Amino acid sequence: MNVVVTNIKRTDQALIQQYLDNDLGVATVHEAQGRKGLLASHMRPIYSGGFIAGNAVTISAAPCDNWMIHVAVEQCQPGDILVLAPTSPSNAGYFGDLLATSLMARGVRGLVIDAGVRDTRDLKQMGFPVWSAAVFSQGTVKETLGSVNVPVVCAGQLVNPGDLVIADDDGVVVVAREEAEAVLEKGKARIANEESKRKRLAAGELGLDIYNMRERLAEKGLTYIDQADWKG
Amino acid sequence: MNVVVTNIKRTDQALIQQYLDNDLGVATVHEAQGRKGLLASHMRPIYSGGFIAGNAVTISAAPCDNWMIHVAVEQCQPGDILVLAPTSPSNAGYFGDLLATSLMARGVRGLVIDAGVRDTRDLKQMGFPVWSAAVFSQGTVKETLGSVNVPVVCAGQLVNPGDLVIADDDGVVVVAREEAEAVLEKGKARIANEESKRKRLAAGELGLDIYNMRERLAEKGLTYIDQADWKG
Amino acid sequence: MNVVVTNIKRTDQALIQQYLDNDLGVATVHEAQGRKGLLASHMRPIYSGGFIAGNAVTISAAPCDNWMIHVAVEQCQPGDILVLAPTSPSNAGYFGDLLATSLMARGVRGLVIDAGVRDTRDLKQMGFPVWSAAVFSQGTVKETLGSVNVPVVCAGQLVNPGDLVIADDDGVVVVAREEAEAVLEKGKARIANEESKRKRLAAGELGLDIYNMRERLAEKGLTYIDQADWKG
Amino acid sequence: MNVVVTNIKRTDQALIQQYLDNDLGVATVHEAQGRKGLLASHMRPIYSGGFIAGNAVTISAAPCDNWMIHVAVEQCQPGDILVLAPTSPSNAGYFGDLLATSLMARGVRGLVIDAGVRDTRDLKQMGFPVWSAAVFSQGTVKETLGSVNVPVVCAGQLVNPGDLVIADDDGVVVVAREEAEAVLEKGKARIANEESKRKRLAAGELGLDIYNMRERLAEKGLTYIDQADWKG
Amino acid sequence: MNVVVTNIKRTDQALIQQYLDNDLGVATVHEAQGRKGLLASHMRPIYSGGFIAGNAVTISAAPCDNWMIHVAVEQCQPGDILVLAPTSPSNAGYFGDLLATSLMARGVRGLVIDAGVRDTRDLKQMGFPVWSAAVFSQGTVKETLGSVNVPVVCAGQLVNPGDLVIADDDGVVVVAREEAEAVLEKGKARIANEESKRKRLAAGELGLDIYNMRERLAEKGLTYIDQADWKG
Amino acid sequence: MNVVVTNIKRTDQALIQQYLDNDLGVATVHEAQGRKGLLASHMRPIYSGGFIAGNAVTISAAPCDNWMIHVAVEQCQPGDILVLAPTSPSNAGYFGDLLATSLMARGVRGLVIDAGVRDTRDLKQMGFPVWSAAVFSQGTVKETLGSVNVPVVCAGQLVNPGDLVIADDDGVVVVAREEAEAVLEKGKARIANEESKRKRLAAGELGLDIYNMRERLAEKGLTYIDQADWKG
Repeated sequence: MNVVVTNIKRTDQALIQQYLDNDLGVATVHEAQGRKGLLASHMRPIYSGGFIAGNAVTISAAPCDNWMIHVAVEQCQPGDILVLAPTSPSNAGYFGDLLATSLMARGVRGLVIDAGVRDTRDLKQMGFPVWSAAVFSQGTVKETLGSVNVPVVCAGQLVNPGDLVIADDDGVVVVAREEAEAVLEKGKARIANEESKRKRLAAGELGLDIYNMRERLAEKGLTYIDQADWKG
Repeated sequence: MNVVVTNIKRTDQALIQQYLDNDLGVATVHEAQGRKGLLASHMRPIYSGGFIAGNAVTISAAPCDNWMIHVAVEQCQPGDILVLAPTSPSNAGYFGDLLATSLMARGVRGLVIDAGVRDTRDLKQMGFPVWSAAVFSQGTVKETLGSVNVPVVCAGQLVNPGDLVIADDDGVVVVAREEAEAVLEKGKARIANEESKRKRLAAGELGLDIYNMRERLAEKGLTYIDQADWKG
Repeated sequence: MNVVVTNIKRTDQALIQQYLDNDLGVATVHEAQGRKGLLASHMRPIYSGGFIAGNAVTISAAPCDNWMIHVAVEQCQPGDILVLAPTSPSNAGYFGDLLATSLMARGVRGLVIDAGVRDTRDLKQMGFPVWSAAVFSQGTVKETLGSVNVPVVCAGQLVNPGDLVIADDDGVVVVAREEAEAVLEKGKARIANEESKRKRLAAGELGLDIYNMRERLAEKGLTYIDQADWKG
Repeated sequence: MNVVVTNIKRTDQALIQQYLDNDLGVATVHEAQGRKGLLASHMRPIYSGGFIAGNAVTISAAPCDNWMIHVAVEQCQPGDILVLAPTSPSNAGYFGDLLATSLMARGVRGLVIDAGVRDTRDLKQMGFPVWSAAVFSQGTVKETLGSVNVPVVCAGQLVNPGDLVIADDDGVVVVAREEAEAVLEKGKARIANEESKRKRLAAGELGLDIYNMRERLAEKGLTYIDQADWKG
Repeated sequence: MNVVVTNIKRTDQALIQQYLDNDLGVATVHEAQGRKGLLASHMRPIYSGGFIAGNAVTISAAPCDNWMIHVAVEQCQPGDILVLAPTSPSNAGYFGDLLATSLMARGVRGLVIDAGVRDTRDLKQMGFPVWSAAVFSQGTVKETLGSVNVPVVCAGQLVNPGDLVIADDDGVVVVAREEAEAVLEKGKARIANEESKRKRLAAGELGLDIYNMRERLAEKGLTYIDQADWKG
Repeated sequence: MNVVVTNIKRTDQALIQQYLDNDLGVATVHEAQGRKGLLASHMRPIYSGGFIAGNAVTISAAPCDNWMIHVAVEQCQPGDILVLAPTSPSNAGYFGDLLATSLMARGVRGLVIDAGVRDTRDLKQMGFPVWSAAVFSQGTVKETLGSVNVPVVCAGQLVNPGDLVIADDDGVVVVAREEAEAVLEKGKARIANEESKRKRLAAGELGLDIYNMRERLAEKGLTYIDQADWKG
């Protein structure tokens, strides 16, 4: 059955804002939540420097058919991020500047799509960030129904509507709505801890010493040998 | 037989200029001509922001052999775009800054090559745009003949000499010389139509309403359901 | 046996500086040394415009295990470049901003890694250039020993510790330490020769004439034919 | 948290047997359940001709670490199929003839793994079918915990423990445990319907007529034209 | 415009039979016609050992839409080979055992498709050979018109209706209808020539001598050196 | 400089025979020598079931140029295996049935080539096994010198002439000539050890117990939980 699920529960916007304010990027959040939720590495930004966080509005779409994006727009609120997963691989250009105009008018922060997009020069000028599997102008049709705001697997990760999506130059990570608050705290702690590490490393201290690695390396049998003495 | 076809018919330059003046990019032209002529999505610009249109001077070259580029340069006129298709896949670096210097001296606008290029830092500084399948410094030889200005299949599309080639951040599209005038008119109409749509969308109107989609979606059986009532 | 080879012989820094001063990029060096030493084309910079040269400190690492990077940092000197080859393919994110901080504190010029990196927004802001096979945030472990400063095959090329590594927008090339002086001279000669060619080409002379290609093309049977007379 | 979920609910074996007895292969089941549940096309059998159906015992494993397979064996019952999804892409050889021996001793019907396997000559001789992303002998380690019988995303599809997995030369499809009975009925109906179609097609009737396509094709504007009259 | 071109000119069947009788496979024909017409290497047989030759009935189809195959069946005659090129990349399963049944009833010899197929176990049992870009069960729709018997670019090669298509374990090659007779003669000559070479090679003669390569190798500077004397 | 190194040292044939007699396949040898020497997973057999071991005669060849294979044939002895690495990626068909005839006349056991081959139907019938990166009929030229019996990097692994090469359905592994005797002993020990393990596993014992894994798993925190009690 093809459905549009309305009135989805969303992650709290104030909470999301803290991810942005604390500069909790993809790598940090992925670690903070125990190394899960990372979309596959073929999801790349169409231009560099973007950093967004927001609530997932999900789309399950037929291959080469972008009809459901039009349906999904109506379900979007300010602070949302559209997440599209085709039911079969497609690099067709599902999305361009007109749909971006419509989404920006509704306050949507960006698009994550495991398929293609087009009008990328315009999208960059408009400042509408997109993470996609391809850039390709091939047109799509509007013939086959899909669903909006159902759970989807996008680039190898399960995304539920209302989940928190974070994207930057490293890629895209999803945080389950129920875990967004706990992950925020862990992420902030991680940033704080990294900051102290960064200072020590910048001052020339070695990770070998900061992380007490020398003993375990020796136990495992790592051997230091002068090149003059080494027989490869 | 290996030939260099001379005195090819070209698309009129004033006509081409209108494509540029009207900002008819790859996605628009692809749609305007009925969704054909699009080169495969692996053809990517070596730097972003380029937008060119011009007449195709075509090269059919042996794999890892760039001899025919030197032959083709002599056939180029201002406003041309070089289009190279290897007869077998190759990511070797067929092209670098010296060839670009030679082409710029003849007024050539860019290169479209289903193989590799090198000296990309220089090419960017020189402002010579290239769409290629790879960036790779591997050198080529000059041993095997190919042909210039014969029909070639480049990245999955048939390109005839004198065809109109358009390239931007989205990729590359080819327009048959005989159709360039008709496609221009359709492209301009499309731009005008999109402009009015853009204003309505920017004002918050929905594509669902602008394009009258609601009825057909309902006919196909799309169902709206509140999340509270939904049993996934 | 897992070893860290210490006190490796390095290429002379004054010599390396001449590569930079003479703008001997990857394509030029690859040609100058007889078309060898080029890493595979999947090695791409995480941001464009970087150009580095330095001594290889090599790492052979287990897949998805970045422990040996911490070990290698201690072996680095100013002017070095870290080169990591996993023993089995991995696109995991072995490297991020903290390790970059540590390497910059030791004067390391960049990283070449046939695997993934993360924190790329930070790395760009810090100005720490990386050439990698992937950008991916997936975390790594610290469980399995590898080796430092042993010969490695990185992206298809043998790299010995102390070899000269050069990287720019075209990719990465390695020069054997023993050959670095001879290659420098050949590279400088090549640059000089290209400069004279560039002037002639910029003035409109054809490569066909500069390189005396016309006779050999005719011998091989290249035929010029007017389009009006051609039966494809 | 890393868990092994025990005493999972399974699909009824008599029900599963009916899938096999009725020759309900991957393509048929995928259609019968509304075109969902299909694993990505990179999942290929290591030898052709295999056809299995069984209950999923799922493994979420670290990249290049096969420790959890040993843990999962203990959870297997006759009629099960092991399904392994690495948390990050890996083509390492997680699985070989010894593990297959152990699984066969427990009545396991096959392996579905989005990673690599080895000893494929032995596996073929033993008659233990495997669908994998790669064949590669690279060894794995036993250092990092994963989980057994948790929901996993394998090759782009969500698989829950106890779901029905079907695999043949076309690939792999998963049926939710709760839907296995309904899908069986739809699959049987589909087979019956196809059988009558097959006879008519074999007798020379056209799909155009059997499926009443001519009118709709004409409405959409399909035009028949004799080649002698056609101007491409 | 979407058209079905009828009454296409075909290559003579007696001529085609000679290709089969003389065992003119893909590699031989590719060489005999001057190294052209070869489809890209991703076109692989779904089972090994097939060898077919026949007239191309071409299909230009929308991505993930197999409607036009049904239309094309009616245009097929005994000895034809169906050639399908999607207008945008798709690995969906356009084709299965029912369509194969229909084609076999009309005497069609096989399918060449730059997309996916399914029911491959059945197709092998039926003895209907297919060369495809993928094996995948994902279903297609019947919504968008395409064309039949127009020129298409399939896997990088231009194929006209009525062209001669040859396929074996090496892949697929196309011969222009007008050239099929001349290429047959060249192919037979090539086979004869190879046969004499084969005998000499089997008797231990060296290609170096048979082809008189030694002098030219020496001219180019090839140097023989005993390993004991070599300083790599 | 392009050289042919003659009179290379080879691994002893009686030693090699023991690898075959003891059924030391690729996975076993890879493990026995400490997990090194494995060629990349894209190296696949053109037909399944082959298992060879022999001395490497190495070829460094220009892309799309098979001239050096003819040179290498003369350097081959019974029991050799030809190993070809192109200097730049190429999927062209370097090798076919005539070259195989010549090699079989000299007692060569097979070919390992990080490029393409053709005439695969014939090669299978002749029983000449090949491991390659591609099957493709595209012809090559004989224009550019390469070298024979120099160290090459083939599919990511350094191969020296006279090294022991082993290939089976799993892929290809190389053993350094100097280590071939020691690796044989380790391989035989490994086989013996595996045999005892196989019996216990076949009898139903668990790897968890045979390898004493339970305690360490518990230490790391693996938790067993009944599905009825689990809150995913």
